[in-house]
Amino acid sequence: MTTPQQTTIAFIGLGIMGAPMAGHLIDAGYDVVGYNRSRPAVDRLVERGGRAAQSVAEAVRDADVVITMVPDSPDVEDLAFSEEGIYASAKPGTLHIDCSTIRPDVARRVAAAGAARDIRVVDAPVSGGEAGAKEGSLSIMVGGEADDVEAARPYLDVVGATVVHVGPPAAGQTVKAANQLIVAGNIQLLAEALVFLEAHGVDTESAMTVLGGGLAGSAVLNRKAAGMRAREFAPGFRIDLHHKDLGIVTAAAREAGVAIPLGAHVAQLVGALRAQGHGGLDHSALLLLVEQLSGRDQHG
Amino acid sequence: MTTPQQTTIAFIGLGIMGAPMAGHLIDAGYDVVGYNRSRPAVDRLVERGGRAAQSVAEAVRDADVVITMVPDSPDVEDLAFSEEGIYASAKPGTLHIDCSTIRPDVARRVAAAGAARDIRVVDAPVSGGEAGAKEGSLSIMVGGEADDVEAARPYLDVVGATVVHVGPPAAGQTVKAANQLIVAGNIQLLAEALVFLEAHGVDTESAMTVLGGGLAGSAVLNRKAAGMRAREFAPGFRIDLHHKDLGIVTAAAREAGVAIPLGAHVAQLVGALRAQGHGGLDHSALLLLVEQLSGRDQHG
Amino acid sequence: MTTPQQTTIAFIGLGIMGAPMAGHLIDAGYDVVGYNRSRPAVDRLVERGGRAAQSVAEAVRDADVVITMVPDSPDVEDLAFSEEGIYASAKPGTLHIDCSTIRPDVARRVAAAGAARDIRVVDAPVSGGEAGAKEGSLSIMVGGEADDVEAARPYLDVVGATVVHVGPPAAGQTVKAANQLIVAGNIQLLAEALVFLEAHGVDTESAMTVLGGGLAGSAVLNRKAAGMRAREFAPGFRIDLHHKDLGIVTAAAREAGVAIPLGAHVAQLVGALRAQGHGGLDHSALLLLVEQLSGRDQHG
Amino acid sequence: MTTPQQTTIAFIGLGIMGAPMAGHLIDAGYDVVGYNRSRPAVDRLVERGGRAAQSVAEAVRDADVVITMVPDSPDVEDLAFSEEGIYASAKPGTLHIDCSTIRPDVARRVAAAGAARDIRVVDAPVSGGEAGAKEGSLSIMVGGEADDVEAARPYLDVVGATVVHVGPPAAGQTVKAANQLIVAGNIQLLAEALVFLEAHGVDTESAMTVLGGGLAGSAVLNRKAAGMRAREFAPGFRIDLHHKDLGIVTAAAREAGVAIPLGAHVAQLVGALRAQGHGGLDHSALLLLVEQLSGRDQHG
Repeated sequence: MTTPQQTTIAFIGLGIMGAPMAGHLIDAGYDVVGYNRSRPAVDRLVERGGRAAQSVAEAVRDADVVITMVPDSPDVEDLAFSEEGIYASAKPGTLHIDCSTIRPDVARRVAAAGAARDIRVVDAPVSGGEAGAKEGSLSIMVGGEADDVEAARPYLDVVGATVVHVGPPAAGQTVKAANQLIVAGNIQLLAEALVFLEAHGVDTESAMTVLGGGLAGSAVLNRKAAGMRAREFAPGFRIDLHHKDLGIVTAAAREAGVAIPLGAHVAQLVGALRAQGHGGLDHSALLLLVEQLSGRDQHG
Repeated sequence: MTTPQQTTIAFIGLGIMGAPMAGHLIDAGYDVVGYNRSRPAVDRLVERGGRAAQSVAEAVRDADVVITMVPDSPDVEDLAFSEEGIYASAKPGTLHIDCSTIRPDVARRVAAAGAARDIRVVDAPVSGGEAGAKEGSLSIMVGGEADDVEAARPYLDVVGATVVHVGPPAAGQTVKAANQLIVAGNIQLLAEALVFLEAHGVDTESAMTVLGGGLAGSAVLNRKAAGMRAREFAPGFRIDLHHKDLGIVTAAAREAGVAIPLGAHVAQLVGALRAQGHGGLDHSALLLLVEQLSGRDQHG
Repeated sequence: MTTPQQTTIAFIGLGIMGAPMAGHLIDAGYDVVGYNRSRPAVDRLVERGGRAAQSVAEAVRDADVVITMVPDSPDVEDLAFSEEGIYASAKPGTLHIDCSTIRPDVARRVAAAGAARDIRVVDAPVSGGEAGAKEGSLSIMVGGEADDVEAARPYLDVVGATVVHVGPPAAGQTVKAANQLIVAGNIQLLAEALVFLEAHGVDTESAMTVLGGGLAGSAVLNRKAAGMRAREFAPGFRIDLHHKDLGIVTAAAREAGVAIPLGAHVAQLVGALRAQGHGGLDHSALLLLVEQLSGRDQHG
Repeated sequence: MTTPQQTTIAFIGLGIMGAPMAGHLIDAGYDVVGYNRSRPAVDRLVERGGRAAQSVAEAVRDADVVITMVPDSPDVEDLAFSEEGIYASAKPGTLHIDCSTIRPDVARRVAAAGAARDIRVVDAPVSGGEAGAKEGSLSIMVGGEADDVEAARPYLDVVGATVVHVGPPAAGQTVKAANQLIVAGNIQLLAEALVFLEAHGVDTESAMTVLGGGLAGSAVLNRKAAGMRAREFAPGFRIDLHHKDLGIVTAAAREAGVAIPLGAHVAQLVGALRAQGHGGLDHSALLLLVEQLSGRDQHG
């Protein structure tokens, strides 16, 4: 068995999520070579104990494992398929773990393209946000062949607290899409309930206590209700990103012929909030839209 | 201070919920006089150690506390306002605790009518279902004047695990309405997610594990997902009742000018399921509707 | 056969719609006795050639026909059922034509109460607005027994251009409810299309020409698109009234177990517009809400 | 000025819509060279007086005008961009009229690519269906530069009764998208109204008369209500195609940040009908879904 010191990990995408994840892998003893489009993030990785690469090709050339954490489907396509990309440069047998949240159909194409070049690909989108990345407590939903997922597990266990193999290639992305559907909807329902309670003059702090203890209880209620009651919408997870993700959900549901009436509805509401210029707020800002639609957004 | 033995409670409505609640009060030592429209329920209360009344008037005449647990708003109106009803027969100073789930505007009128006759009224709808009633572990959301709620608390503590004063008269009903809004929506979102995942060939058991551990986690997911995956829809809480409650929510939101886009949407879906003849199933049967809308209801 | 001069019509409710309708009946030679809650409207009727009554009872006592045109269901209930109301004072055999837009279930109860006192009742809500009332060109949807509807037809033909018997008592109200469902929805769809076209830089005047000539053509497009393009929202038919009517539609659909997904959805949007303080604008102001939801309401 | 005999038109896509359109151009005296993926359609064009081409390249090489009428965005992209496609083979100065219904963003790219090769491109999607194509009475919404649209007008006038220039390149597609949004929504609203009326026992034939005469009147009501009442759903315009078009609408609205709440909602319903296997029915079959959701689809 190899030790962490004998394993080289190329980590591509050192943003808010990627940087702390790469840091945890360094802490665990791995040899981490980082690449990021803007240079300062790479410098910070070097300070943290990693090595710098000048290009994707350089980063992956000698890597055993490639981890990617980039914003959107086209970014992953570009990394996978371009002439200077991962699959053009990596060794046969390399394990590619894509932690980005992207469209399941793109994940499927990427996995197939990898397989054709003897690259083992798993999709491993994460949930838990910046805090989860920093704490190494992410939930990770993993799609791929069983062998490949087992091969990826040691690395994922470093950054995540819950790592679950949910199915074949792209299944991780599908579960992440379902996650984003539920979360957006649960937030919107809580927002409707809060405005409804406020309009009826109810003490919402007490109400949250009793609602949270019964069948209406949820992680969204536990983590978001206080901020929503206080109108504090610093992200957290931005409306812009949730809007992107709901685009993935609705497209994947459409592709599969699955009706998601509430999902499609909340996607419109998230889109509206974004169109109004609130894309940078936390997704719990859906409360603002409910207030607006209820004529209750004028006060102070 | 009075002992339980010195306190007479009239308990009206000895159905699935009322009977075990009255039983707990007997066990706690109270003198419980029961009335129910059909006689066998009263006989069972007597076997349990209570006393029987032949009419509402007889039940409440000498009671210190009146607890009502009946199906719908008109039932409570009838009990409160009819010539042979509670307010015509109870002593001044009687405490009336209404545990039924009814319209907030009706609760407000009932409370005002009680006050006019020196009856102290609190609305105390419960959540937790038949199991919660049997275990004495209900969540109870209480509306009323602070003094009256404190007076009611000893009795409510006997039947509930979480008893929270949420605001003035009718506030309990308002919070219960919000509860039903959130629960129906969370179930529908989970149903959409499950059908979506199945259509994409994902292992939904694993998916529930990872979804339940993150921001998509909820009491609905914990308690309902397994039954939904197995298509087991024995109630639990019946679609018929949730349909009634969503009628309350939408009316109360309309009255207050509050927009509940997802709430109104899921109310339509619950109504559709009921119109299709599924009113007797558990509310988690919303899954059947998502399957039908996705053309996936033919198998088996 | 009686001449108009030999027929006395009590006309109750001399508002924006009722006053011109009563005026047409005077012009047609009928003996019209008017009553209205505020006196100036009665005085104007007298100037126009009618007679004044000091109360409902006085108006209907000697009338052959009673026509009512009042705002909402409770107004009609009050007129029909109160001790000083129509059915307490009218002669047996009187024909009561209710032109108000009210709940079908109330219309059904009113018709039954009339029948019990030998009053023949037809429900005859109108469409066409203030302009249609002034021109005597209303569309009138009539519910009732065939004989009674035939008896009512001569009077309705005076105020309407299209008078159609659509079914038993309350059927007229049901059709009016369906009318309001379609109209609200068609306006909202046109609003979405217009904002969509503007956002894409399309010449909406040309677009309306070509859309109006095909399957997307409608009375709503013909009569409302120009005003919507110019942001002119003087009523017309006020959001407040359409909100009331959509309350009728959703309640009647719920009662019948009929799914009206788009209807329920647009009812939420109309309610939102009203909650924002726009109840006094024409219903075509739904465009404002679409603009707001699209972040396009800031400009001038 | 050139005579029709001196103008060669390449017509690509000789399906249900394209064949009669090409026929009208032959009748008008133009030299029409046809190409279709399956040969029999080309043979029928030759019998009608046209000429046959073996490939796209052969068809367009000597053409003055190229008209395309194909099913979807990728078909147009393929025709425009492939190595054997139109822009690789047509003479500079050729006028390309695309009558297909495709995504506005694709139309924009096609127009730009044409301009780069000195091909003048107009998008000219049509409305009016097979009947309109046969009768030469289509409504045509045209996007493009003013000069190019004027150059295209003589040909479009041969196949359409209403030809309107609605804006710059892609504007025709945008207006067509708006058309499909309105039409789908108006059908759904009519379906809800019809089931609502039937459930209340109203004579729907009379109801359609009076609804059609007022503000609820529409081309959809005039042309579709009778078939919907009779449950006759032979296309007409197929659900499959409307589903495709609503995909275009929702994507284009999303791209522009425009909220289309009812549009997105009806897109879900059309998708559901298709998922249930009804993609081959006329779009008025949305009635079936409303019946199903109302538990009224069991009878006969």
